[in-house]
Amino acid sequence: MKEKSVRVGLVGFGTVGCGVARLLVENGDILRAKTGIRFELVCVVDLDTETPRPVQLPDGVLTSDLEVLLNDNTIEVAIELVGGTGIAKEIQLKMLRAGKHVVTANKALLAVHGSELYQVAREADRCIAFEASCAGGIPIVSALRTGLLANDITALYGILNGTCNYILSKMSAEGTDFAETLKEAQAKGYAEADPTLDINGGDSSHKLTILGSLAFGYELKLEDVYTEGIEDVSQDDIRYADEMGYCLKLLAIGQKKPNGKVSLRVHPALILKETALARVNGPFNAISLFGHAVGEVLLYGRGAGMMPTASAVVADVIDVALGNSKRSFDQVQVKSRQQIAGQIEAMADCESRFYIRIMAKDHPGVVAAYGKVLGDHGISISGALQHEGRGPDDTVPVVIVTHETQEKNMSDALAEITELDTIGGKPVCIRIVDIPEDKDD
Amino acid sequence: MKEKSVRVGLVGFGTVGCGVARLLVENGDILRAKTGIRFELVCVVDLDTETPRPVQLPDGVLTSDLEVLLNDNTIEVAIELVGGTGIAKEIQLKMLRAGKHVVTANKALLAVHGSELYQVAREADRCIAFEASCAGGIPIVSALRTGLLANDITALYGILNGTCNYILSKMSAEGTDFAETLKEAQAKGYAEADPTLDINGGDSSHKLTILGSLAFGYELKLEDVYTEGIEDVSQDDIRYADEMGYCLKLLAIGQKKPNGKVSLRVHPALILKETALARVNGPFNAISLFGHAVGEVLLYGRGAGMMPTASAVVADVIDVALGNSKRSFDQVQVKSRQQIAGQIEAMADCESRFYIRIMAKDHPGVVAAYGKVLGDHGISISGALQHEGRGPDDTVPVVIVTHETQEKNMSDALAEITELDTIGGKPVCIRIVDIPEDKDD
Repeated sequence: MKEKSVRVGLVGFGTVGCGVARLLVENGDILRAKTGIRFELVCVVDLDTETPRPVQLPDGVLTSDLEVLLNDNTIEVAIELVGGTGIAKEIQLKMLRAGKHVVTANKALLAVHGSELYQVAREADRCIAFEASCAGGIPIVSALRTGLLANDITALYGILNGTCNYILSKMSAEGTDFAETLKEAQAKGYAEADPTLDINGGDSSHKLTILGSLAFGYELKLEDVYTEGIEDVSQDDIRYADEMGYCLKLLAIGQKKPNGKVSLRVHPALILKETALARVNGPFNAISLFGHAVGEVLLYGRGAGMMPTASAVVADVIDVALGNSKRSFDQVQVKSRQQIAGQIEAMADCESRFYIRIMAKDHPGVVAAYGKVLGDHGISISGALQHEGRGPDDTVPVVIVTHETQEKNMSDALAEITELDTIGGKPVCIRIVDIPEDKDD
Repeated sequence: MKEKSVRVGLVGFGTVGCGVARLLVENGDILRAKTGIRFELVCVVDLDTETPRPVQLPDGVLTSDLEVLLNDNTIEVAIELVGGTGIAKEIQLKMLRAGKHVVTANKALLAVHGSELYQVAREADRCIAFEASCAGGIPIVSALRTGLLANDITALYGILNGTCNYILSKMSAEGTDFAETLKEAQAKGYAEADPTLDINGGDSSHKLTILGSLAFGYELKLEDVYTEGIEDVSQDDIRYADEMGYCLKLLAIGQKKPNGKVSLRVHPALILKETALARVNGPFNAISLFGHAVGEVLLYGRGAGMMPTASAVVADVIDVALGNSKRSFDQVQVKSRQQIAGQIEAMADCESRFYIRIMAKDHPGVVAAYGKVLGDHGISISGALQHEGRGPDDTVPVVIVTHETQEKNMSDALAEITELDTIGGKPVCIRIVDIPEDKDD
């Protein structure tokens, strides 16, 4: 091995940026012992150069001027941790055009402008590495890019947003309602002051766009992912589902269907409590992958946070320094938008089982009425739960679990049920996701 | 990307060899679509060229003559799937000296002769890739080599042998005894006709030698790993431990201790039933890793079998073809035997909690007698279980769980307890392993 030195620049000196600086500056000896490479963090750019940070940079490293980083030709690897799809895009483009390899945790940017950025990187003969963009410290990008590359990936099921998982785990464990639990998550630092992009499923969709592309080899756009958040999840449904053996998670799902189409979706999902993903609690993330050769592989760990995310960023810095990221970036292929035209399954065609809660008025003929609507749409009932006693407005909650049916049948049926005289308000509908079991016995 | 062609040779056309051939020959289009590389399996060597296999090779590919492979200079990557530490070593040496990169699943060979083989590979400017040697289809080697490389790994806990895990899971679920369950495992193909190396812990030690080296950056030898198997595990202890909240697993453990020493051991271990590893059942494998930055990361999947292992072999073939394996092999460092002299913790110094079952004669003063011995050795009791009624030879099983103590204290105490008049036979002693919880709440 040859001892070499690699100079690194960083833009965005926030929480994760400080974690990265800590690993590169304070733990440089660990990296050097493992890789034979001396990493030097020579330039850190942030508009705020005043606020004290939990890491000490060498003098002269921190600057508010991006040009300093761009003009330093000794910097090989540039890390973008600004986030968002605005200025961050300009920064990455400038980094690439200045001849630097880019390492980023910016899932939103890659999900929205990934194709354009990858193209610019190719033109500049540079690469973009993004292990940290999905599931924080879990090495899922490298698993898809290397260890599992021999597989035709048939499905992935991910818990990719720690904020949502924290909220749903708490609601489930403690019987609290959504608004109250969100406040608690904010107080504990598991949800941001503006939690919109987490709880509306947007963040998970960004990650699924990136992982789906790697898993299925398709050039994907954010619009390919159907997205629903957890804002409307109620304690009642968590409790009823629990009684029926299910647990509620915000899942990111990618499936290759028998007809060759790929379904990509993020939505609250009921999964059987025995499923491994059902046991992923609090701010943790996990991804179950199914490969045609390997069967199921599950990866679990911290999907966010200062040091776990920094761990992934620095892993990429090393991989770029070794030249491996560039080779994988150049060589690992995805099918273009033209090649996959019509290959993304429309949500209306997606089949699943459903959990429905109807607030039925306590009259004769109610069951016959909604039963007929479901039957008319070819939907059959696999289980039901109706406790004695009244709910609000003198209605009775009736919970129904259906067999598989297409989304469009269910939405048509629900529209009709909503119109029934004997029903109070719009029914609640949550998809049930049956994660395959890779099992011998 | 440039479309290129890579020619591959394979020695050992058994179960995994057939799986590899299937991926390279029958699924060549998947690999080509993902990597832009056309893999050609041009030579398969096996002494048995007659027995029909579940995969069809092109004419002229199968031969019993290793020289055909060695002399074909167009073959860049050679796969060794012969297994064992004898002829396989000669084959790998010849492959390397013939200028081929080596891909192997041979954990025994690498654990015993790894240092020598790596040295020969370096001299030949070639690499050895071994993702398939540990935990089958689980991409644990690539996780340690890439995605988690920025971490100082503080501990790893692995279920690395599917045969043992199948047997222990069955014994636990069905109340069967060891001998009977082993027979069933053999009938179902989860244990070999000669299961010695699986059930005596040898196979797990091989894997721990390899993973420990990657995780801690030490040049390890098989002798560095303390090893016990599951041959003496009894149904009684599984049942008593279950009552006390524990589950029995054969664990491979690597820990970096506060004094800087590394503990490496394979033995039956009781772990709390709520632990993630406790839920790994049947022939599955899993590894919990703890990194100073990333926290806990867990990987789960199939640790053996034709296609899962082939998935890992072919992932390495791709990685070698991309040039990435070679760079990692050249650059990723381990400390030499001289540098780590005295750094492997002796088993006698290892601290843990213990489960002890004593067969006490039903006399006054028994508790005082063994209690005194434990106390004299500074061992304090954290829990005990004694059901009413008699066991064999008119003895009563008394189960004790201790606080942490060093192995040597416990073995000294057990030797004395064995000598007590009031005790029937040698006590059973099983280590309790407290896997840290990476948890916020």
